[in-house]
Amino acid sequence: MRNVSIIGIGQMPVGEHWDLSVRHIAHHAIAAALEEAGTEQVDALFVGNMLSGTLLSQEHLATLIADFSGLRNVEAAKIESACASGASALRVGHMAVASGMHDRVVVCGVEKMTDSTGGSTTAGLATAADAEYEAAHGVTFVGLNALIMRRYMYEFDAPIDAFAGFSINAHRNGAHNANAMFQKPISLETYLQAPMIASPINMMDSSPVCDGAAAVVLAPTEQAQQYTTGHHPGKVEILASASANDTIALHDRKDPLFLEAAYVSSQQAYVQSGVTPADVDFFELHDAFTIMSALSLEATGYARRGEGWHLAADEAISPDGRIPLCTLGGLKSRGHPVGATGVYQVVEAVQQLRGEAGPAQIPNATIGMTQNIGGSGATIVTHILGG
Amino acid sequence: MRNVSIIGIGQMPVGEHWDLSVRHIAHHAIAAALEEAGTEQVDALFVGNMLSGTLLSQEHLATLIADFSGLRNVEAAKIESACASGASALRVGHMAVASGMHDRVVVCGVEKMTDSTGGSTTAGLATAADAEYEAAHGVTFVGLNALIMRRYMYEFDAPIDAFAGFSINAHRNGAHNANAMFQKPISLETYLQAPMIASPINMMDSSPVCDGAAAVVLAPTEQAQQYTTGHHPGKVEILASASANDTIALHDRKDPLFLEAAYVSSQQAYVQSGVTPADVDFFELHDAFTIMSALSLEATGYARRGEGWHLAADEAISPDGRIPLCTLGGLKSRGHPVGATGVYQVVEAVQQLRGEAGPAQIPNATIGMTQNIGGSGATIVTHILGG
Repeated sequence: MRNVSIIGIGQMPVGEHWDLSVRHIAHHAIAAALEEAGTEQVDALFVGNMLSGTLLSQEHLATLIADFSGLRNVEAAKIESACASGASALRVGHMAVASGMHDRVVVCGVEKMTDSTGGSTTAGLATAADAEYEAAHGVTFVGLNALIMRRYMYEFDAPIDAFAGFSINAHRNGAHNANAMFQKPISLETYLQAPMIASPINMMDSSPVCDGAAAVVLAPTEQAQQYTTGHHPGKVEILASASANDTIALHDRKDPLFLEAAYVSSQQAYVQSGVTPADVDFFELHDAFTIMSALSLEATGYARRGEGWHLAADEAISPDGRIPLCTLGGLKSRGHPVGATGVYQVVEAVQQLRGEAGPAQIPNATIGMTQNIGGSGATIVTHILGG
Repeated sequence: MRNVSIIGIGQMPVGEHWDLSVRHIAHHAIAAALEEAGTEQVDALFVGNMLSGTLLSQEHLATLIADFSGLRNVEAAKIESACASGASALRVGHMAVASGMHDRVVVCGVEKMTDSTGGSTTAGLATAADAEYEAAHGVTFVGLNALIMRRYMYEFDAPIDAFAGFSINAHRNGAHNANAMFQKPISLETYLQAPMIASPINMMDSSPVCDGAAAVVLAPTEQAQQYTTGHHPGKVEILASASANDTIALHDRKDPLFLEAAYVSSQQAYVQSGVTPADVDFFELHDAFTIMSALSLEATGYARRGEGWHLAADEAISPDGRIPLCTLGGLKSRGHPVGATGVYQVVEAVQQLRGEAGPAQIPNATIGMTQNIGGSGATIVTHILGG
């Protein structure tokens, strides 16, 4: 298996892009990544996307985007695993290069959630759950996460403001990210006064509906140097890549408060890379809802069961803390264009590892971890990157 | 890159399965393939599917199916490239095993087209085209193919019955396939009297809307023998796997009568395998519409431009002809559950290469080729298998 490096990154500012189509925002990210990598042609494009069929009446999305981006005679395929589509696409790109099948691959995560040819975004997001046994009863995706959060608060005596620190940290960090949807810090008061969406999840526990695209160019590590331009040395290597699943329906889980797929995929990633949680300089986790931050930390080895929220309370997650989270805003502040998120996390990890994160820079960052979650925890993909 | 073999196959009879859900038909194929491979556990499931989001309000499909099939702590992802989703998923499984990332992988193609939570199947199929520049004008997927067929007839002086032989051959072969949707031969008269769908495409030029699932289990060739049971020796190897794209919109093609992506992917496959068209014992091509058979033959090296239809007229495509096509019924007779088709083609090729095709057996078949087409030719995936 060949080692794989990231030789170029690109991203579209996250927001509501009413004037652009899904192909435009994807192309923006791809063109930026290719320019940085110093190449115009690749062997394949893998696109992470969840909702183009449901919301935009557009399947065959990867070929559409390859065409619009001027990539001809290449392989193109869309990879879908709900909100984990981005990192799943990166895994496919990684295997394509690692296997020797391809030498240069672009992976693009893209989602256009503000437009729709018919269905609502809420109904679209519910397609991540079990359509016949969960969504058919009317539960939304926020509703499922609210059930988890309520149970967590009951089980572990967590107060209503237990999760505030995750949101405050994300917004404080996102304020330094020009590509973030929300670039304003929030206070504890703002959090406590936020409108309730699905109790106990309020507006500040929840990531926004938005549009975005991010892209990376991959090459074998042994060839990486030749592709990259002087000021962006191709030094960021994928040290580990793992994906695991769990039951799709929340009600089928042995323990709905333990993210088994996060545990399995992170353990595999630690073994692959030889890295331990103590070696990780920052962690881009999947804070689609604040409860997911606590559960990820617990399943991934950073906190004991029921104590993930303590890390938010005691500032361990801030940029100068023990395990900095969501260093460029995370899903909460940068935004969560669902199929794109897994690639944004990796792009931001590369920014940190290159020392290009500006005021949000984690000092001396050499090992970064990303984790992308699909559904209420049914698909979880973990990557570890080294600078 | 490790060599990859197919160590188990499974399939659901194609038809209208009103009493079964998408998870049931996928599970049927997966369970059969795993049983044949003599294993209960794998490392990953890759699902080829196009329409689960649009028709069934179910994304996150691979994880749903993995869960229902008892595959836990594995990687699961859906691969989508319109009607080429099945072969695209096989490519991902191939790269996963070739890279060394996984040792045992299931690839399942599945489509449930008879059910819908809302949209029509015709609208769903149109998502393979460019939603903003083709489908928005009201053209259906059959309509696009009708434009190609009409142009071909004009350009190459092909009469209205030029394509009848493709349909007659498919139905004659499918009559021997217990998993085919239609198991009756048809006559030239039946073809000529068939109702018109989108002139000049009639009912007998066109593959049916249906449900189906097919699955293969992959392992490194060097380990294949250990997994397989005595009467199904793991001898079928993937000799070549290639995918190429073209413009998604028909109106953007330099020449709408030449399948450039078929040319590119088949040339790559010939180079990878060292096989030439003359070495191929049978060809499972993508006869979604009869015109596509002619175009595939021409782009892939079996006929000159404008002469693909001659092969149907002179019986070269029959089981004892020069290049037998659609030996177990093809898309026309076996059926075309869109995202499943690419895997059915490969499963049938394995049946032939093992000598298990019954009355449809091609004598001494040792090299088989499959070709799966997405959209009106925008994504084309070619595989060559050796027995």
